[in-house]
Amino acid sequence: MTDNNIQTNSITLLGLGSMGTALARAWLAAGTSLTVWNRTPNRAQALASEGATVAPTAAEAVAAGRLVVVCLLDDESVGAALDGIDLSGKDLVNLTTGTPAQARARAEWARERGARFLDGGIMAVPPMIGVPDSGAYVFYSGSEDLFTEHREALAVPAGTTFVGVDPGYAALHDVALLSAMTGMFAGVAHAFALVRREDIAPTGFASLLADWLAAMTASVHLAAEQLETGDYTTGVVSNLAMQVAGNATLLRTAAEQRVSPELLTPYMALMERRLAAGRGDEDTTGVIDLLAVG
Amino acid sequence: MTDNNIQTNSITLLGLGSMGTALARAWLAAGTSLTVWNRTPNRAQALASEGATVAPTAAEAVAAGRLVVVCLLDDESVGAALDGIDLSGKDLVNLTTGTPAQARARAEWARERGARFLDGGIMAVPPMIGVPDSGAYVFYSGSEDLFTEHREALAVPAGTTFVGVDPGYAALHDVALLSAMTGMFAGVAHAFALVRREDIAPTGFASLLADWLAAMTASVHLAAEQLETGDYTTGVVSNLAMQVAGNATLLRTAAEQRVSPELLTPYMALMERRLAAGRGDEDTTGVIDLLAVG
Repeated sequence: MTDNNIQTNSITLLGLGSMGTALARAWLAAGTSLTVWNRTPNRAQALASEGATVAPTAAEAVAAGRLVVVCLLDDESVGAALDGIDLSGKDLVNLTTGTPAQARARAEWARERGARFLDGGIMAVPPMIGVPDSGAYVFYSGSEDLFTEHREALAVPAGTTFVGVDPGYAALHDVALLSAMTGMFAGVAHAFALVRREDIAPTGFASLLADWLAAMTASVHLAAEQLETGDYTTGVVSNLAMQVAGNATLLRTAAEQRVSPELLTPYMALMERRLAAGRGDEDTTGVIDLLAVG
Repeated sequence: MTDNNIQTNSITLLGLGSMGTALARAWLAAGTSLTVWNRTPNRAQALASEGATVAPTAAEAVAAGRLVVVCLLDDESVGAALDGIDLSGKDLVNLTTGTPAQARARAEWARERGARFLDGGIMAVPPMIGVPDSGAYVFYSGSEDLFTEHREALAVPAGTTFVGVDPGYAALHDVALLSAMTGMFAGVAHAFALVRREDIAPTGFASLLADWLAAMTASVHLAAEQLETGDYTTGVVSNLAMQVAGNATLLRTAAEQRVSPELLTPYMALMERRLAAGRGDEDTTGVIDLLAVG
């Protein structure tokens, strides 16, 4: 373990985009011995003055230490940057944005090259990195040994949440949460559009809206319980039939306020399909079943 | 004011659906002298044993007091129940679900009949009514005098938030928040669908999801500031161009996990339209502009 801890105090980082640079600064601020490489070298120079060792090639950067963190544009860039480089005995942590399948394929690729592999999905924007209590954290999945040994170093820029030995799970959790957020933002856009032409201050309305949405996130737990039991009628307060009826008021109001309902109607259509299938006494959880393809 | 306070301790309630019944019980528990009426009388009998006076007709119920609260199925039911009844000098509080335009028309209808009018939008389900710290509250708009005079009585079943003298604003706030919630639920459905076929416990995933969405509600405040200034580039961290690029990973993951992207694509399409209009340096706030019709 002592040996591992020594290794961890030295990190190689490939990729100095805005996220990579934020990670680098967090590690440098913590006194980590950091070797960096970027495809275009100018981004590395600023970090050199802050204490980073700039490697002229990715191969030299990788050779400098055991823990190699990669934060590049996409999975293809990872393959290109590491092509032909000796990875045997390395601990590769991939913080590059990608899909679960890309992470799984990259894990297999790393295994073939004799490296341990951990994939990460960063739940933060660069300004949150290295900031205590910013709420930033990273989903990790893949080699649990790698995660455990380097956890202290990995925890410097952001919190750590290990979600499984399947290397695809970090990306899957990352994308699932971002997808849910996209839906929430769509609903928020519709809400702002509804009040837009009225004498209603957006900032005051935003406080009501943010508090309401935060309170309504509690419903996620009931949906999860229903998914686990398979009984979507458990704990239902406002059932599907009532909610479909309520949608009419939402659509009528959108028409009155001259707002396109296009961001709400796909979900309402699935609610109606489920209702038409005789599931009016259920919660809206059945919509999840309808999203399955193939 | 003393006279008004005496009046407020006596309430007439029309409509004993699940919400009306919950309101009635909250007022009865607070010692309010309550007269109730329902179109079908059996629902009123249970409340009689709990201390309510059951009026045989809506006219007799209305005649029993000055503060008349209406909680019926829809706006049409309000017109039907109160048709031909003397409303002069009454304080009419309409908690029936409806649209802003319906509330405005009903306010004018009440004014013509000599009644003051307050519209309300209940942000709660019946089990939350009358429960301290449940978070339940009601948006009110219309007569501010009526609201101020009866505020104490109105605050018994749920919190009160007055949002303007325009009688349509309570319904508008109600519907706007429900619409945003609908979008959030759509995103949540997509997220659950993504992890559905994996070895991921829905309840554990739900905790991560709920915390993430609650944290992301903070972005609503930035969007509001951008709407107020009209400058959608203020404070942008991840701009529209970057977010559109990120959507590709969301869609690719949906395809990998065999989940239909139909709940996310309408919002993504608007992001792309805005980007194509040369607004790549903005936040996603510009999507709100694209929702305006006519």
